[in-house]
Amino acid sequence: MEVTRKNFKESLDTIYSAIEEADFLAIDGEFSGISDGPSVSTLTNGLDTPEERYHKLRKHSMDFLLFQFGLCTFKYDHTEVKYIMKSFNFYVFPKPFNKNSPDVKFVCQSSSIDFLASQGFDFNKVFCIGIPYLNQEEERLVREQYDERRSQSNGVGTPSFISPNSSKGPVIVPEEHKVFIEKVIEKVEDLLHTEKNSVHLEPCTAFQRKLIYQTLNWKYPKGVHVETVETKQKERSILVSKVDEEERKKREKEKQEKEQEELNDSVGFSRVVHAISKSGKLVVGHNMLLDVMHTINQFYCPLPEDLNEFKEVTTCVFPRLLDTKLMASTHPFKELINNTSLAELEKRLKETPFISPKVESAEGFPSYNTASEQLHEAGYDAYITGLCFISMANFLGTFLSPPKQHISARSKLIEPFFNKLFLMRVIDIPYLNLSGPDLQPKRDHVLYVTFPKEWKTSDLYQLFSAYGNIQVSWIDDTSAFVSLSQADQVQIAVNTSRYAESYRIQTYAEYVETRMEEKRA
Amino acid sequence: MEVTRKNFKESLDTIYSAIEEADFLAIDGEFSGISDGPSVSTLTNGLDTPEERYHKLRKHSMDFLLFQFGLCTFKYDHTEVKYIMKSFNFYVFPKPFNKNSPDVKFVCQSSSIDFLASQGFDFNKVFCIGIPYLNQEEERLVREQYDERRSQSNGVGTPSFISPNSSKGPVIVPEEHKVFIEKVIEKVEDLLHTEKNSVHLEPCTAFQRKLIYQTLNWKYPKGVHVETVETKQKERSILVSKVDEEERKKREKEKQEKEQEELNDSVGFSRVVHAISKSGKLVVGHNMLLDVMHTINQFYCPLPEDLNEFKEVTTCVFPRLLDTKLMASTHPFKELINNTSLAELEKRLKETPFISPKVESAEGFPSYNTASEQLHEAGYDAYITGLCFISMANFLGTFLSPPKQHISARSKLIEPFFNKLFLMRVIDIPYLNLSGPDLQPKRDHVLYVTFPKEWKTSDLYQLFSAYGNIQVSWIDDTSAFVSLSQADQVQIAVNTSRYAESYRIQTYAEYVETRMEEKRA
Ligand SMILES: Nc1nc2c(ncn2[C@@H]2O[C@H](COP(=O)(O)OP(=O)(O)O)[C@@H](O)[C@H]2O)c(=O)[nH]1
Ligand SMILES: Nc1nc2c(ncn2[C@@H]2O[C@H](COP(=O)(O)OP(=O)(O)O)[C@@H](O)[C@H]2O)c(=O)[nH]1
Repeated sequence: MEVTRKNFKESLDTIYSAIEEADFLAIDGEFSGISDGPSVSTLTNGLDTPEERYHKLRKHSMDFLLFQFGLCTFKYDHTEVKYIMKSFNFYVFPKPFNKNSPDVKFVCQSSSIDFLASQGFDFNKVFCIGIPYLNQEEERLVREQYDERRSQSNGVGTPSFISPNSSKGPVIVPEEHKVFIEKVIEKVEDLLHTEKNSVHLEPCTAFQRKLIYQTLNWKYPKGVHVETVETKQKERSILVSKVDEEERKKREKEKQEKEQEELNDSVGFSRVVHAISKSGKLVVGHNMLLDVMHTINQFYCPLPEDLNEFKEVTTCVFPRLLDTKLMASTHPFKELINNTSLAELEKRLKETPFISPKVESAEGFPSYNTASEQLHEAGYDAYITGLCFISMANFLGTFLSPPKQHISARSKLIEPFFNKLFLMRVIDIPYLNLSGPDLQPKRDHVLYVTFPKEWKTSDLYQLFSAYGNIQVSWIDDTSAFVSLSQADQVQIAVNTSRYAESYRIQTYAEYVETRMEEKRA
Repeated sequence: MEVTRKNFKESLDTIYSAIEEADFLAIDGEFSGISDGPSVSTLTNGLDTPEERYHKLRKHSMDFLLFQFGLCTFKYDHTEVKYIMKSFNFYVFPKPFNKNSPDVKFVCQSSSIDFLASQGFDFNKVFCIGIPYLNQEEERLVREQYDERRSQSNGVGTPSFISPNSSKGPVIVPEEHKVFIEKVIEKVEDLLHTEKNSVHLEPCTAFQRKLIYQTLNWKYPKGVHVETVETKQKERSILVSKVDEEERKKREKEKQEKEQEELNDSVGFSRVVHAISKSGKLVVGHNMLLDVMHTINQFYCPLPEDLNEFKEVTTCVFPRLLDTKLMASTHPFKELINNTSLAELEKRLKETPFISPKVESAEGFPSYNTASEQLHEAGYDAYITGLCFISMANFLGTFLSPPKQHISARSKLIEPFFNKLFLMRVIDIPYLNLSGPDLQPKRDHVLYVTFPKEWKTSDLYQLFSAYGNIQVSWIDDTSAFVSLSQADQVQIAVNTSRYAESYRIQTYAEYVETRMEEKRA
């Protein structure tokens, strides 16, 4: 089901109940870009520590916009022995809801945009009818402003249409606006002494509108209602109407209700993420670190600098996460699965020894066909991710005695995979551990090598040809990590390099030490 | 006429000849945003110097994308006494044309995007079928790479399909790829000894492809042709074919021609801007400083830091510019025109003493209807801008004796307006002078005031209430320029402020001095 600004409000109950009844949820995001650094691969060095990786992604990926969010809910039907799924494809856009709300700037990466375009992505759905959202801090601020205005208007004589910051003394009208304001007063006097009910003032500047509000509030605290009306062309002008006290209160109340609704509308898509979070359900994703980072950054709070704080926030927002790419890369799946990219994984899990799960769309929900792929639509990717999870979970059941055909999302068997997010292209640390300290692999067979930028991979192979098999992890165009096959060769290599002029070799330990010193300085 | 990647090439001749035959051109751009600073108005302080304004716009506006470019050409038909116009609405997007080409990142501002969305802007036309482009430096680099590859392939034995950087000695194949490469060689041997003409190798990594190219080129310098083919899903695999020398040369040539065409395609929309530039025609725009800056930045070169260098580059690219907003704000128009925004100006110029010009669309070009406005489509805005220019130019003709009804784009009467770009919201400098030094108004009646951020405009009015009429130009929330009506009050104000604790006053001269010192430090 496609959800945009047009049908968001009417779909909310459907979404809430799909989340509530589900056994587990699958999510996926599409972004306006991946890396604002020189290249995606410099973001993913093979020997990044989890801290380094987190800092790089936070620095180089968070200015992009998560603009499509896929949610697929799965509920197991024990009598029919099948899953019922409901899939939602949300288009998300930070439409400013009034002139005081944040005017978000986000980055687009041409290659990512072009890739999505080639997959038939509909950008108009994002930019023209995307669902707005606020993060928690923005929501709090808007609620506060709103409450402050309401409490003022309940007090004496300061109706809600006067902005809280405007001065309450007599109005100082700058010389050049005096004639203008006098004319306005004439018009209002006219209104009060004739049969007419209201008068439209001419369009004017924001500053003049402010003066009008202040002046009229000062001169006519009770008898008139002043409001700014906006034409479709976004031209603002002021409407002054005659009202008695009862009418004035009624309008005031209507206005407040309208404001409250506007406020809920502006929290928008964040309400869906809040519901996912509150449900405490297992949330499944494929290679989901960036999805999780963007989701928290966009709908909760700017990401903390410190990795441990990020882990804390994440486990608060998503108490149980499972990454199918990590699962597929771990025993006993690793031995059976060559390619863990989502599309390949899904194909592989249709073949023995795996069994395709029985999954049907709920009534009224469109069904996806895995034969004619719609990859890279977030809703479809979330669906496929859910399928992969079910197949792999059920496969674990075949090891039980007696074997079980259905393994639920609450089974102990899948707990080892909880809260571990796949770390792309890191050689020796498979995952980011959200619920504790990370693995600290020995890197005593690793060298840090610097060299002229003319060097190619082949130069490194040549340099280390005496040491047997090596593995090169490029850092930038003048440095790389080189992993030797045996740790005891490291010192030999370092010694040999002592007199070299064109390149320099350090042990990994020396490299870490140098970096720490640089940081302290 | 709408121009996208789909019809760009077939439209080029039409575009070139429209530019060639025109008496003058009108342009307009739409951007993905205006200001990445805190607010648009902080970009446009009323007392900015031209340098300051240029630096602010360069810093805070250039990361946005110019993604719609309107061009309207006007040709005067003397016998029919009317203008014939051709209007083009280009959608522009920096689609990377291969994996070595620049992967442009650009910023979007939600409020701008939302505004365009509300005007019916079609974002899919930008992102899915926008015309690509390269700036001059990028074009030069790509041509160089291309020429280098060609000259190598004309030499001995290094065909163009070998990347210029690959080593020319025997290939060092890393241990873990040895088996893979041996299998490839087996397959090629197979091919050479059977009837088959070609063999498709399995998809593999970029590094493996590199090894294949190097190995096969080394082992079979003549007998086989190796090329990478790309499926629609962007998967790359290698096709090896048997060829005799003649066939090999033919393929080589075909490949070169294809590359040359790809290169032209990738220069794309820049070719239109080059044509405008080379034509030397008068180019008219409305409030066109940002349009000019974006056009140069995107299609020529990154903007220079120095304003004078910017003026030089601009007069090279556009030898004759005219800004209709400046024209409308200058005598004798200033006295007749209250609101110089494009839409209002266009309406005003339909009324006496002005005369609506007779302008018709050329055959085969869609006509715009100024009654049902399509404002904020770049092509339409360019058209309206042209209309405004014609009306104002012709109005100047009424002062001649005898009066003239038609004033051409080459008339001396309009020369005073050349190469002066409107400076938005600057109080005392109407324009940026592209062909010389800028005006240096006296600012000896101006104060620089700093104060607590709780202060409002009214506090400033109150502070200076003794000095008569003042004008406030906010800088940020703790500082503003205050212009007094008389210069001789300045010293009194500064003196009075000496013992004040909450605020501080400097003369404008002192302020400039302090800033210069800060810069030098
Ligand atoms: N000097 C040099 N630098 C390289 C080479 N290959 C990669 N690099 C650098 O290492 C970074 C990461 O490279 P890599 O992981 O191979 O991925 P890539 O960015 O897609 O080429 C690149 O952005 C370059 O700065 C090479 O052959 N020579
Ligand atoms: N302290 C304070 N700062 C202001 C006030 N009005 C404007 N500013 C500051 O001046 C900047 C420019 O303001 P202005 O030109 O009025 O346009 P605005 O940004 O649309 O409000 C704002 O971004 C604020 O930082 C005010 O009443 N008090």
